[in-house]
Amino acid sequence: MTKPDSKRSSVALVTGKPANAAEEQVNNGSSDPSVSSSPHHALTPATPTKHKSAKQVSRDNLSRRNTESEVFDDGTNTFFWRAHTVTVLFILTCVLVYVTLLEETPQDTTYNTKRGIVASILVFLCFGVTQAKDGPFTRPHPAYWRFWLCVSVVYELFLIFVLFQTVRDGRQFMKYIDPKLGVALPERDYGGNCLIYDPGNTTDPWHNIWDKMDGFVPAHFLGWYIKTLVIRDWWMCMIISVMFEFLEYSLEHQLPNFSECWWDHWIMDVLVCNGLGIYAGMKTLGWLSMKPYQWQGLWNIPTYKGKIKRMAFQFTPYSWVKFEWKPASNLRRWLAVLGIIFMFLLAELNTFYLKFVLWMPPEHYLVLLRLVFFVNVGGVAMREIYDFMDDPKFYRKLGQQAWLVAAITVTEFLIVVKYDPRTIMLPIPFFVTQCWFLGIVLILSWTLWRFFIRDITLRYKDARRRKQEVTGDCGRPHGNGGTATPSGRSKLNGISESLRHRKS
Amino acid sequence: MTKPDSKRSSVALVTGKPANAAEEQVNNGSSDPSVSSSPHHALTPATPTKHKSAKQVSRDNLSRRNTESEVFDDGTNTFFWRAHTVTVLFILTCVLVYVTLLEETPQDTTYNTKRGIVASILVFLCFGVTQAKDGPFTRPHPAYWRFWLCVSVVYELFLIFVLFQTVRDGRQFMKYIDPKLGVALPERDYGGNCLIYDPGNTTDPWHNIWDKMDGFVPAHFLGWYIKTLVIRDWWMCMIISVMFEFLEYSLEHQLPNFSECWWDHWIMDVLVCNGLGIYAGMKTLGWLSMKPYQWQGLWNIPTYKGKIKRMAFQFTPYSWVKFEWKPASNLRRWLAVLGIIFMFLLAELNTFYLKFVLWMPPEHYLVLLRLVFFVNVGGVAMREIYDFMDDPKFYRKLGQQAWLVAAITVTEFLIVVKYDPRTIMLPIPFFVTQCWFLGIVLILSWTLWRFFIRDITLRYKDARRRKQEVTGDCGRPHGNGGTATPSGRSKLNGISESLRHRKS
Repeated sequence: MTKPDSKRSSVALVTGKPANAAEEQVNNGSSDPSVSSSPHHALTPATPTKHKSAKQVSRDNLSRRNTESEVFDDGTNTFFWRAHTVTVLFILTCVLVYVTLLEETPQDTTYNTKRGIVASILVFLCFGVTQAKDGPFTRPHPAYWRFWLCVSVVYELFLIFVLFQTVRDGRQFMKYIDPKLGVALPERDYGGNCLIYDPGNTTDPWHNIWDKMDGFVPAHFLGWYIKTLVIRDWWMCMIISVMFEFLEYSLEHQLPNFSECWWDHWIMDVLVCNGLGIYAGMKTLGWLSMKPYQWQGLWNIPTYKGKIKRMAFQFTPYSWVKFEWKPASNLRRWLAVLGIIFMFLLAELNTFYLKFVLWMPPEHYLVLLRLVFFVNVGGVAMREIYDFMDDPKFYRKLGQQAWLVAAITVTEFLIVVKYDPRTIMLPIPFFVTQCWFLGIVLILSWTLWRFFIRDITLRYKDARRRKQEVTGDCGRPHGNGGTATPSGRSKLNGISESLRHRKS
Repeated sequence: MTKPDSKRSSVALVTGKPANAAEEQVNNGSSDPSVSSSPHHALTPATPTKHKSAKQVSRDNLSRRNTESEVFDDGTNTFFWRAHTVTVLFILTCVLVYVTLLEETPQDTTYNTKRGIVASILVFLCFGVTQAKDGPFTRPHPAYWRFWLCVSVVYELFLIFVLFQTVRDGRQFMKYIDPKLGVALPERDYGGNCLIYDPGNTTDPWHNIWDKMDGFVPAHFLGWYIKTLVIRDWWMCMIISVMFEFLEYSLEHQLPNFSECWWDHWIMDVLVCNGLGIYAGMKTLGWLSMKPYQWQGLWNIPTYKGKIKRMAFQFTPYSWVKFEWKPASNLRRWLAVLGIIFMFLLAELNTFYLKFVLWMPPEHYLVLLRLVFFVNVGGVAMREIYDFMDDPKFYRKLGQQAWLVAAITVTEFLIVVKYDPRTIMLPIPFFVTQCWFLGIVLILSWTLWRFFIRDITLRYKDARRRKQEVTGDCGRPHGNGGTATPSGRSKLNGISESLRHRKS
């Protein structure tokens, strides 16, 4: 607790650049200061030749540090953190020996095939949970996140397999997982009578509202609460929430269960369920970014209450990074944020389309499992994408979980396209097309103006002002060369940013 | 090239503790000096409270440094080292889109199933090659070793699947890989006429020798050359080479192709093929441990000859660690070395038994592929085991490749046991049993003597000598407390070591 210096270095490794930092440093030969042992060293460049790059990195680190929580860790839980590679290998061997030598193999080929595939998956999980690369999250235990990484791999491989089957075979293949599947399902229609107060129904004129109050209301709330924790930004959450209702409007001619009453779309979904979920999520985010991150070993805590509190806190994050997406800061971040919103909406649509084309009833446990899966991997993937975007030099890899989530979303969409091209290709109503066209044009023109035209105008104004300055203050001596620095730096950081600095 | 200080730190990360070091440091909170930026810092303990552990670690580091080569790297090949995660994801997406939208799916279910499985494996390789955890080797490219890691996973899962089938189904399952497989094979007998000079054959009395000069002679030589590079120890290689011939003698009643003439065993195999292979391997090891490890970017080299030399050297190791197994230094290392030799011999026997029980002809390409596979993963696994053994505190994980090779060897052996228990259980001749019994008794008694009885005797002698010293030099002042240190240290390092120090 009283040795922040030696601890801080390990903290920087956990929160900012986990494990990769050392790797990247080796591979690229760049002197990343976050690995060095003293924080003071991180702010002073090591050698004169590396002056500029070290300065730049330290500036990036500073801006990063503002969004990161400080962590103090006494580092006592060593046993808990170990991966027990040899123990797992030993147990696995024992289980295999038992199965091979003491169990009679059934003569049923189909059953054995299934059992063989399940056993392969379990062995893969054994390997992955003990040995896979760690991601950015460490609580409650790194093995928990390694487990979900391996589940992503298995799910993606399952999707790829399904993608390569014929439509009929693919749907019948689901029978191997659950014999009740593989049967065509009728679509439920959520629309119909849209009167909030229905005078025709004398027993209960409000029956339309009560009908909508099913299990999906708390599901929507909980879903958006978690999505807010994943995205960590009020604006992006609201945009995705509203955009999804627009998508439901646009696609209700394809999937009838997208057709809802207007007040169901805007009041029930956006305002009540999603809005409250986002509000609760933002409150939690505020608490998470303010709460102190002090980790003590369980045996170092004297009181029982403290021990129980420590155990509960094991299920909260190890440290916290506030996401600042800053979509307007440069073109790359703008495109990345657009891409994230696009993939997010695509993954949401896949939930509905995938169960539609694979004939899954909405209440089937596989549908729920898929959502539980996305809740667990989504947070890791978003954090990895944020880290990837935040890296100024493209040195960092795109995180493994983000890579897999992207691949899974694409594969799911391709399955939808392959299994039901007719539904996807149903002609879009003219009014809807117009709306989307308008929206795309607006986004494109804003992009053009913000990152191209505005820059040119500003650069022109800047050049003219400088000319005036030169003609006006011709003989005045320069102080420390301060005016020369931004124009030199502009090549490194993109021109628009330096111009904004100058403007403010 | 002239900044060894900053480079040395990155070197320590590459050779000694790749990527894991940082991770371990975070997880365990131990202050491993090899991560700190200045080499001087590594040898001076950071805080007084951590005095003892830091001292111990630095001593381990020192002994480690003697076996490690020094590396100088100007760190220019940044593009080459990047994993291109986004590029691979993009290409994968394009391929999937092509297959889904532009290709007609065949109507053949069996073909589609096969194609789906192959596609899943390829996607897994795509993911693994870009994203899997790096191992200890980096040349020619880390992706090469990630590829073999993924192949190990696929092979292990294949073995697990085969293990769960019935014997008949498992053998017929091989037909899916090659339709020519799944047919019982006659065993070839290598024994027979054992006369070196055969006077009965008038045309060529030496024909027995020429008969043995088949493709297996260079295969044996090459195999042992590579095994020597993997094990990096003359004694262990010779022991394994001789032990395997003993195993062939002992098991020729089970597999007839183990039965060879005495001169084929001892002269052709042990002396000529294996011996020459080991000799050539030791010469190469000597060169590898002496050669300078200086890595310059290709564009920094002025001459064409230098560029070509640099390209060729890309296929030599990045750095070199001499293996010093020291089996007699303590009980743990002794048991580990015994275990390695046991697993090595088991893997060699599996080569013969596996093709026997799965009805694979010896010249089938799958048999060869398995050997190529073992050549590639064996080196990584052995290095990881060496690193694991070398770690004094058990903090390090057993490397992922070593974990997989162990699991694969066990699974292969279990397949052999399950598929042909009768052959395995054929009664061993009495003479052979006696020999093995004698061998095991010898090893056990040596272990007992070396690590238990000898220690007790030495400790007793030590105590008596100290008593004599105390009675003899009662009034003499102690110089720097030099005699007190070893007995205090003995608790940390095992008693036998300190006693040996005292003896010498």
